[in-house]
Amino acid sequence: MKLEKPQDVLLLGPGPSPVHPRILEAMGQHTLGHLDPDFLTITDQTCALLRFVFETENQITFPVSGTGSAGMEAALVNIVEPGDKVLIGVNGVFGQRMADVASRCGAEVVEVEGEWGKPIDPEALEKKLSAHNGVQLIGLVHAETSTGAQQPLEPVVELARRHDALLLVDTVTSLGGLPVAVDRRDLDLVYSGNQKCLGAPPGLAPITFGERALRKFRNRKSKVQSWYLDLSFLTRYWGEERFYHHTAPINMIYALFEALSLIKEEGLDDRFARHKKNSRALISGLEALGIKPVVAEEHRLASLNAVRIPENVDDQQVRSRLRRDHLIEIGGGLGPFKGKVWRIGLMGHGSRRENVERLLKALALTLNELGYSCSGEEAFAEAGKVYQA
Amino acid sequence: MKLEKPQDVLLLGPGPSPVHPRILEAMGQHTLGHLDPDFLTITDQTCALLRFVFETENQITFPVSGTGSAGMEAALVNIVEPGDKVLIGVNGVFGQRMADVASRCGAEVVEVEGEWGKPIDPEALEKKLSAHNGVQLIGLVHAETSTGAQQPLEPVVELARRHDALLLVDTVTSLGGLPVAVDRRDLDLVYSGNQKCLGAPPGLAPITFGERALRKFRNRKSKVQSWYLDLSFLTRYWGEERFYHHTAPINMIYALFEALSLIKEEGLDDRFARHKKNSRALISGLEALGIKPVVAEEHRLASLNAVRIPENVDDQQVRSRLRRDHLIEIGGGLGPFKGKVWRIGLMGHGSRRENVERLLKALALTLNELGYSCSGEEAFAEAGKVYQA
Repeated sequence: MKLEKPQDVLLLGPGPSPVHPRILEAMGQHTLGHLDPDFLTITDQTCALLRFVFETENQITFPVSGTGSAGMEAALVNIVEPGDKVLIGVNGVFGQRMADVASRCGAEVVEVEGEWGKPIDPEALEKKLSAHNGVQLIGLVHAETSTGAQQPLEPVVELARRHDALLLVDTVTSLGGLPVAVDRRDLDLVYSGNQKCLGAPPGLAPITFGERALRKFRNRKSKVQSWYLDLSFLTRYWGEERFYHHTAPINMIYALFEALSLIKEEGLDDRFARHKKNSRALISGLEALGIKPVVAEEHRLASLNAVRIPENVDDQQVRSRLRRDHLIEIGGGLGPFKGKVWRIGLMGHGSRRENVERLLKALALTLNELGYSCSGEEAFAEAGKVYQA
Repeated sequence: MKLEKPQDVLLLGPGPSPVHPRILEAMGQHTLGHLDPDFLTITDQTCALLRFVFETENQITFPVSGTGSAGMEAALVNIVEPGDKVLIGVNGVFGQRMADVASRCGAEVVEVEGEWGKPIDPEALEKKLSAHNGVQLIGLVHAETSTGAQQPLEPVVELARRHDALLLVDTVTSLGGLPVAVDRRDLDLVYSGNQKCLGAPPGLAPITFGERALRKFRNRKSKVQSWYLDLSFLTRYWGEERFYHHTAPINMIYALFEALSLIKEEGLDDRFARHKKNSRALISGLEALGIKPVVAEEHRLASLNAVRIPENVDDQQVRSRLRRDHLIEIGGGLGPFKGKVWRIGLMGHGSRRENVERLLKALALTLNELGYSCSGEEAFAEAGKVYQA
């Protein structure tokens, strides 16, 4: 039985995002050996392109052979040792996850809780840093996929330097869609995922280790608990030695190469501007439908738009109809946002005017069908104003 | 810069193996969401096909989102708790790896060493089992990719039952190419990799948990040290609940689905017979060239043929020329076999008469160029006899 051709669903959920045809074409290319000289050239080029997108000179920059959460785990298992004090900002699902992973590494985890939909307050961080002497690592989510909130990083970097702590940043839903700027911001350890603003299919987790993070790694007293993710092996394969560790996911790397090439061709600034404009247009249109964003404008992610489901509107009904009648996927809420929030992604190849307009039209139609009164034309016009501005 | 079309290298190394065009086509299909109803149908079908190939009714059978070594790690982190006594057969790189991973899980690892190129002797296992009371898990490699040796499993199953221990089996280089037969053999925990006899590109590690293994998992006192590989989360996504854990590598799963479908269409017995015949033909041909197999016939893998490099022949020169002049990849030796052994894979779509013949011809030519006297025609004729028989 041959795989049935998947329907052409437009992916406007929290990821995966729509994949550019050039990337799908790259995925389907002839599989080379993982130690083949031509493949090794592609891995070198992929790492160079990752440095471009991370905006870093970090030598140790490569894709982990797993999805975004494997990137999170790779960061923590290599840097955290049992007994280390780790401070994690928790204002959504991915901060919770980071705290869970860190505790499984044997860390003494101090959580700084924040309201869902808002960034973590640097003052709250500072208070905990002072109360818990000797924190070695601060972990934060740059773009909280569960809430659509963006974490300002500069004040946290300053705190980390002052308290001599490393700063670990989750950029799964920001890298390639909004500035991550690893070197300019002086971030120590940063990971991401393929399937959001980078626009490739899921399966790889780009990661970059700065010098301070590497120093902590080199000074470890205990073995890394994961063999698969042990940086000392991974750098031997991804570095000059090319020593066999595990078989790299060849075709996934083709896809990542192509996705990163597309980003380089577009240019980072133009790409960030595109993500911003389409998000603003979408929000304008949704507001015209009476649908309000969860996050205040200054902390709103361009890549992931969390909006409140209007009262008396059934989450599941709307999403099922969008998928069934309009071939559009949007995401539901997680945790306390379940049934209350939609998460609309405009990431990578998905962040386009035609997608914003198609969704506004389809959503208005669907809401009308379900008895919620709103005007699709008005939403369309409001979005249009953003593009004309 | 668009990805340059990779050269059409024939992969006759230890993996990845050649990928069938239908699988590459599946890889490049439109990416669906990881919770999309159509995608969930594909995952259900993929798990059913995995049960077919593993020959098991085990409900908990799914692909781990990582390469083969992630499968090994997934098996061990879920089943082993700190202080557990674990017995590992070490007669090659992958047994060593298993011992390393188990020790990182906090196990007290007892190694049973065996000669490279031979299976582990059940009597040696039995001795260690008696000397170290209370072994909870025996770990063995069914098909040692570093040596080409096959481990007979039946006597070990008998030992495991008698000593009330679980049996973990690495089938990375056997599943889909020679009988694994999980239920018939009563194996407790088995994992594999995409890129060998299953014939898909690397990136997923099929795994299956039997009831005894699950009981040990459910009775854990400590948290699984890996969040990414924690079975309690994974079964919630792969099971009926469909609870979000991590974003599954969608397109890789398309590829695995297609690879497994091809196996079902061919039939397991025909596929095993095909692997066996091509391996026998290759070895006959190589012997005519004066190249001897490492492993005695009764323990020789059909999927991975380890052979001794003739004296005064330079490993690297031969392999570079095969790659450069004939577009064929074969593998070198690892560890003590480095420079002394070639590893020639005939796996999945790669196990075909035309490939055997193409390699024999190219290898004879290359050896002649380098001053080693042998007759390609003779090798060709010897291989032909196997096919005519």
